[in-house]
Amino acid sequence: MTLQLDSDGHLRHLLTLDGLPREILVRLLDRAGQIRDTALGRTCKRNSLVGTTICTLFFEPSTRTRSSFQIAAQRLGADIINFEASTSSARKGETALDTLRNLEAMGVRGFVVRHAEDGAAEMLATHAGEGTTVINAGDGRSAHPTQGLLDALTIRQAKGPDFSKLKVLIVGDVKHSRVARSDLHALHTLGTGEIRVCGPQSLLPDDGVLKGCVVGDDFDAMLEDADVVMMLRLQRERMEEGLVSSLDDYHRDYGLTVQRLRRAAADAVVLHPGPINRGIEITDEVADGPQSLVLRQVSNGVAIRMAVLETLLA
Amino acid sequence: MTLQLDSDGHLRHLLTLDGLPREILVRLLDRAGQIRDTALGRTCKRNSLVGTTICTLFFEPSTRTRSSFQIAAQRLGADIINFEASTSSARKGETALDTLRNLEAMGVRGFVVRHAEDGAAEMLATHAGEGTTVINAGDGRSAHPTQGLLDALTIRQAKGPDFSKLKVLIVGDVKHSRVARSDLHALHTLGTGEIRVCGPQSLLPDDGVLKGCVVGDDFDAMLEDADVVMMLRLQRERMEEGLVSSLDDYHRDYGLTVQRLRRAAADAVVLHPGPINRGIEITDEVADGPQSLVLRQVSNGVAIRMAVLETLLA
Amino acid sequence: MTLQLDSDGHLRHLLTLDGLPREILVRLLDRAGQIRDTALGRTCKRNSLVGTTICTLFFEPSTRTRSSFQIAAQRLGADIINFEASTSSARKGETALDTLRNLEAMGVRGFVVRHAEDGAAEMLATHAGEGTTVINAGDGRSAHPTQGLLDALTIRQAKGPDFSKLKVLIVGDVKHSRVARSDLHALHTLGTGEIRVCGPQSLLPDDGVLKGCVVGDDFDAMLEDADVVMMLRLQRERMEEGLVSSLDDYHRDYGLTVQRLRRAAADAVVLHPGPINRGIEITDEVADGPQSLVLRQVSNGVAIRMAVLETLLA
Repeated sequence: MTLQLDSDGHLRHLLTLDGLPREILVRLLDRAGQIRDTALGRTCKRNSLVGTTICTLFFEPSTRTRSSFQIAAQRLGADIINFEASTSSARKGETALDTLRNLEAMGVRGFVVRHAEDGAAEMLATHAGEGTTVINAGDGRSAHPTQGLLDALTIRQAKGPDFSKLKVLIVGDVKHSRVARSDLHALHTLGTGEIRVCGPQSLLPDDGVLKGCVVGDDFDAMLEDADVVMMLRLQRERMEEGLVSSLDDYHRDYGLTVQRLRRAAADAVVLHPGPINRGIEITDEVADGPQSLVLRQVSNGVAIRMAVLETLLA
Repeated sequence: MTLQLDSDGHLRHLLTLDGLPREILVRLLDRAGQIRDTALGRTCKRNSLVGTTICTLFFEPSTRTRSSFQIAAQRLGADIINFEASTSSARKGETALDTLRNLEAMGVRGFVVRHAEDGAAEMLATHAGEGTTVINAGDGRSAHPTQGLLDALTIRQAKGPDFSKLKVLIVGDVKHSRVARSDLHALHTLGTGEIRVCGPQSLLPDDGVLKGCVVGDDFDAMLEDADVVMMLRLQRERMEEGLVSSLDDYHRDYGLTVQRLRRAAADAVVLHPGPINRGIEITDEVADGPQSLVLRQVSNGVAIRMAVLETLLA
Repeated sequence: MTLQLDSDGHLRHLLTLDGLPREILVRLLDRAGQIRDTALGRTCKRNSLVGTTICTLFFEPSTRTRSSFQIAAQRLGADIINFEASTSSARKGETALDTLRNLEAMGVRGFVVRHAEDGAAEMLATHAGEGTTVINAGDGRSAHPTQGLLDALTIRQAKGPDFSKLKVLIVGDVKHSRVARSDLHALHTLGTGEIRVCGPQSLLPDDGVLKGCVVGDDFDAMLEDADVVMMLRLQRERMEEGLVSSLDDYHRDYGLTVQRLRRAAADAVVLHPGPINRGIEITDEVADGPQSLVLRQVSNGVAIRMAVLETLLA
């Protein structure tokens, strides 16, 4: 994916963390870290994007991610247009492109795109005019790069910059998860010591996604000594598809409880991209407990998105 | 309700006018009055909330109240996120709390909350983090404090600051009305001379809400010499519930007409929280007539909300 | 339509281009042209409407036009409220008026109105308070004045200010098109040399709209030597109404193809108000080809709306 870098190697779009040079990734984390310490103070506002119009172009509904990008853009002084195209209106790739071109012609410079189809953001970036930036806010099951970045920042804040010492465990529906893919890309790029992936066979991908990972379906065994436990959200429709026998079974085998968490390192931290199915992939005690970084992830999300918007558009 | 005051007696949330100290209430009215005279000038904008993000968190739809808060926040320079959670998606208390915590983590400082359940705003305020402010924009049938404040301001502008000389009549579905409850709290706190409440028995509350009021179901009799007539909106579903026999009957017995209004004091003023069911609780002639303060209430609504936001967040 | 001018002949509302004095129309085009060259630069923002609240009051859905007005207002520093009243909720004229009056009382100064009924914007302007401005963003089949202005600006940029030398052809469903009506008004006012109108008989108006135009149903013949070809959007419901036999037939008779376009002048330009039904009224090759000004129209739309908002509200 060189599309997202210009000929000088600078970031032009943010489509995926796959193949993103380590120095660019680290610079984004550094920038977000600074922003978090200063500008995320609740009354501080930057002006670096005054006069820039950003459009959240969502073909899949997502109040949470959209709000995070919107707040990030507002904090930078940008103008924002929210464009919600429900999937129900069966918008096709071509129509998405027409929408982009029209908004470009209106002067929109940055597009934050969410789409149910793999590659949608890349397709739009391919056809975008010069000076237009596309940020992938989640496409199909392919990538959700700002989530990967915010997770990496959250781990780095908790465990320090040397990922080579870390054992990181990703748990759940990796097969259908763009979050997991972007997390894996970030963890590989940052040189994570050991990446473990755990879930029922039906929810593990069979392509090359798990290359270089320790893979297994025994959650208790995989938890041993883990420094970071990254839980994924279970889509309830997986049960209807027969990939999960029941929510109770799933919770019994892959739900993170306080008891189970004791198998991990004593200072292990727990992440979840939200929204949490409380009592299914994670219990209330863990989600709201001292090892949980769930709300820290949400805060870091705004900082990461500010860093990404500023890097791409300022 | 001491939750809304901090240990120094300053306002931290605005949840209800019930028990709100008179001096705090009067200070909000004074502040709104100043704002109305100056900043509500149509091109004047304040900067007291630049850098502050406010979220309108509406679990019940209401374009009108949300627009009023949104305009108030914009006039103060705040950034705004509109979060609409339809009641149809059956959001529960816990989910509302998760939503609040996530938006808090994103840096939102003020939440303007509307919810169909009594006590929802209070519940959120109880669990809100330090530095987070909750403003009740209407919960169940309990309270709608900014409406109570704007009604009090409207009466004070028309009749002067001494409420002890006033006869104020509230008419209609008091039983289900959060507006009526907040009006009653404000009127009691401001020492209103006589508070009369009128409506069909089926629409009058049977708990202690009407303590200290003169209560009756004969509209004509209750109107005599009234200085202020506060009409309530009739929810059409009350007819389906059998609480009102027909809209025609309701209008005949409790509709305010020009003829009827003559029974009140010659300089009586008429209020209605809107939106008006024209021809049911009030005729066009009265709604648009010289004694109507309906649009003045709407203007005062923005001023009150600016005063509340500034007091709580600046 | 003198309602839109005040007693000094200044523009107070923008409701229609019908009867709008030529000098006012030309001044708006000049202003938009300047804005396009300077302020539409993608990072430039003006402050002429800081402190002014504008409401997009849409009783018909239209993301595109609304976004264009919203971006224009943001570029001028205005605050914006989006008020969407779906037609499904069967809002009547009176309710639209109540909505306007309430938002006026909240301090909204400019209303950008779209409505399915002819005359809706005029009705609101008639009842609007002093200091309130109404901009028609499309009412029924009557008028869409900012579209007429942006089309005129687009033609002027391509062909120069002397319209008397131009042969302009309008093609398609003129009968139901407010765009066509506003285009015709602008073209007449600017002294266009020859205005041709072409479409199937069932889609041509039978009132006086086409006075002074050359009218015909033979697209090939009408295209000869045309300098400007303005294609209209075909509403698919026209087929259900029996006004068009089939989309294939329509495309065969009135679809603009590269082959057909050769009949026009060699330097002819093609306009379309969007969104395009690709392959029906216009092929991809023409829509995206070198003679197409479709995206230029979209850009000009923002400039025109900035000029209109500034002229009316600054």
